[in-house]
Amino acid sequence: MNIKPLGDRVLIKSCESEETTKSGIVLPGSAQEKPQMAEVLAVGPGGVVDGKDVTMHVKAGDKVIYSKYAGTEVKFDGEEMILVRQNDILAIVE
Amino acid sequence: MNIKPLGDRVLIKSCESEETTKSGIVLPGSAQEKPQMAEVLAVGPGGVVDGKDVTMHVKAGDKVIYSKYAGTEVKFDGEEMILVRQNDILAIVE
Amino acid sequence: MNIKPLGDRVLIKSCESEETTKSGIVLPGSAQEKPQMAEVLAVGPGGVVDGKDVTMHVKAGDKVIYSKYAGTEVKFDGEEMILVRQNDILAIVE
Amino acid sequence: MNIKPLGDRVLIKSCESEETTKSGIVLPGSAQEKPQMAEVLAVGPGGVVDGKDVTMHVKAGDKVIYSKYAGTEVKFDGEEMILVRQNDILAIVE
Amino acid sequence: MNIKPLGDRVLIKSCESEETTKSGIVLPGSAQEKPQMAEVLAVGPGGVVDGKDVTMHVKAGDKVIYSKYAGTEVKFDGEEMILVRQNDILAIVE
Amino acid sequence: MNIKPLGDRVLIKSCESEETTKSGIVLPGSAQEKPQMAEVLAVGPGGVVDGKDVTMHVKAGDKVIYSKYAGTEVKFDGEEMILVRQNDILAIVE
Amino acid sequence: MNIKPLGDRVLIKSCESEETTKSGIVLPGSAQEKPQMAEVLAVGPGGVVDGKDVTMHVKAGDKVIYSKYAGTEVKFDGEEMILVRQNDILAIVE
Repeated sequence: MNIKPLGDRVLIKSCESEETTKSGIVLPGSAQEKPQMAEVLAVGPGGVVDGKDVTMHVKAGDKVIYSKYAGTEVKFDGEEMILVRQNDILAIVE
Repeated sequence: MNIKPLGDRVLIKSCESEETTKSGIVLPGSAQEKPQMAEVLAVGPGGVVDGKDVTMHVKAGDKVIYSKYAGTEVKFDGEEMILVRQNDILAIVE
Repeated sequence: MNIKPLGDRVLIKSCESEETTKSGIVLPGSAQEKPQMAEVLAVGPGGVVDGKDVTMHVKAGDKVIYSKYAGTEVKFDGEEMILVRQNDILAIVE
Repeated sequence: MNIKPLGDRVLIKSCESEETTKSGIVLPGSAQEKPQMAEVLAVGPGGVVDGKDVTMHVKAGDKVIYSKYAGTEVKFDGEEMILVRQNDILAIVE
Repeated sequence: MNIKPLGDRVLIKSCESEETTKSGIVLPGSAQEKPQMAEVLAVGPGGVVDGKDVTMHVKAGDKVIYSKYAGTEVKFDGEEMILVRQNDILAIVE
Repeated sequence: MNIKPLGDRVLIKSCESEETTKSGIVLPGSAQEKPQMAEVLAVGPGGVVDGKDVTMHVKAGDKVIYSKYAGTEVKFDGEEMILVRQNDILAIVE
Repeated sequence: MNIKPLGDRVLIKSCESEETTKSGIVLPGSAQEKPQMAEVLAVGPGGVVDGKDVTMHVKAGDKVIYSKYAGTEVKFDGEEMILVRQNDILAIVE
């Protein structure tokens, strides 16, 4: 069983925020928009989405920072995942 | 009797969420947007919708994850179905 | 006397929902958007509407499902009719 | 003295709704959008309006159904008239 | 000293509404949008405004009907004037 | 030290409104949009802003009327300045 | 470890406002939009963002004025940083 995102959707899995690690990224709670670090699990094909041509810039395995409240949560084999638009992914962390 | 969706509309039938199956997808309730798993029953022809060219990427028989509150419910021969725009379908589950 | 819709407007007449018929379509009440079955009486010519080219896909005599609150009611020779945009027609029922 | 509408504006004069006439159009009150029958008095030249090319499809003398709250009322020689956009005219009645 | 409107802005001076004149235009108060008669004092050059090409259709000296609350009031040499977008001018009165 | 506006941004310095001067412009307070007279200090390069090509029509030294609440205040060497989009500048005063 | 912004995103680090420095920029608190001075740390590649072609005009090391509430805060190695769209950067300070 396998989730294949459509269009510019990206399937991600939120990482635990590592507040104690020295070089870890700690994402503070914010009332408006709670940023999150996540790992990309699957990426839609892009193409024309809502009349606009979208090229995908993230790939499975990327660690990304995203805007949490923009996505839709799904639970799969006991794991919580999130479907977001690529536009809600703010940055790649290398 | 037969429902033929227009434009980018898709006719889907919500699946019961299988909360006890090990490999089943369980969709948690969310206050803003309640995701759902469904089976595609019929697909509109796409084409120019609201001035934008839409290609249909789902087909009858696909299992999909969609955003529940975006659609319109219809009851047909005792079965509840939902008409959604393809844009409200987030992913295909294989 | 004759009502000729302009642009992408469609003149429809709501059907009584046949809740007892086995193969009839029963449309449940919904708080946000109340779907309806209707018969198309007259169809606008389409063309450029609000800067977008619209092709009409419904014709007089079609049975359609539409979003009720999007239209404008008119009464004509004692009959209640509704003027909707074609975009508010979700599907054709055959 | 003469009112010349600009762009896609149309000058109309509301007709009294003929509730008792058998073949008259009776427009029921609606909380959201109160439709009205009116006669077209003058029509703007159309052309590029808000970046979109508009062709005028109504002409002086047409009887039309329009959405009342969209327009702007003016009083001229004791007569009440309304300036609406052509887009707020739903249908021509012949 | 001289006010030169930019883009599609038009400088107008509101006329006193002549409620007693037989052939005068009387503009009734409206809660949403209070129409007004005014004289055009100066007209912007038009051109590309907000990504759309605008041609100016009014000129200094024109008597116009406009939507009052859309503009910005300025006082100059003791006279009250208003800066409106041409789109808020509904008709020319000749 | 030097502020260089980006895109269609314009750096302006509000002028004191000269309420007593005979030929001065007096800008009345308004609840919705408080117009202001200002001097242009620096002008962005224009170009493609939000997908639209913008040509700058104001230059340093121009006296302008602008919509106050649209801008962002900055204080520099003890002087209060405002960064506005050119679109919020309504007219040039000569 | 390294944050690479996507599209038109820019990673910035807010500067302490130097209220006592004579030639420093002091940014007053504002209820609607609190401007801030910041240093650019990393810049996205631009390109097609939301269907519009974006060219990046800021680079790492630039001192900029931005609209604070538009961005998303991240904490990295104990330092607070902000991810903003380039459009929320108002000016470069040299």
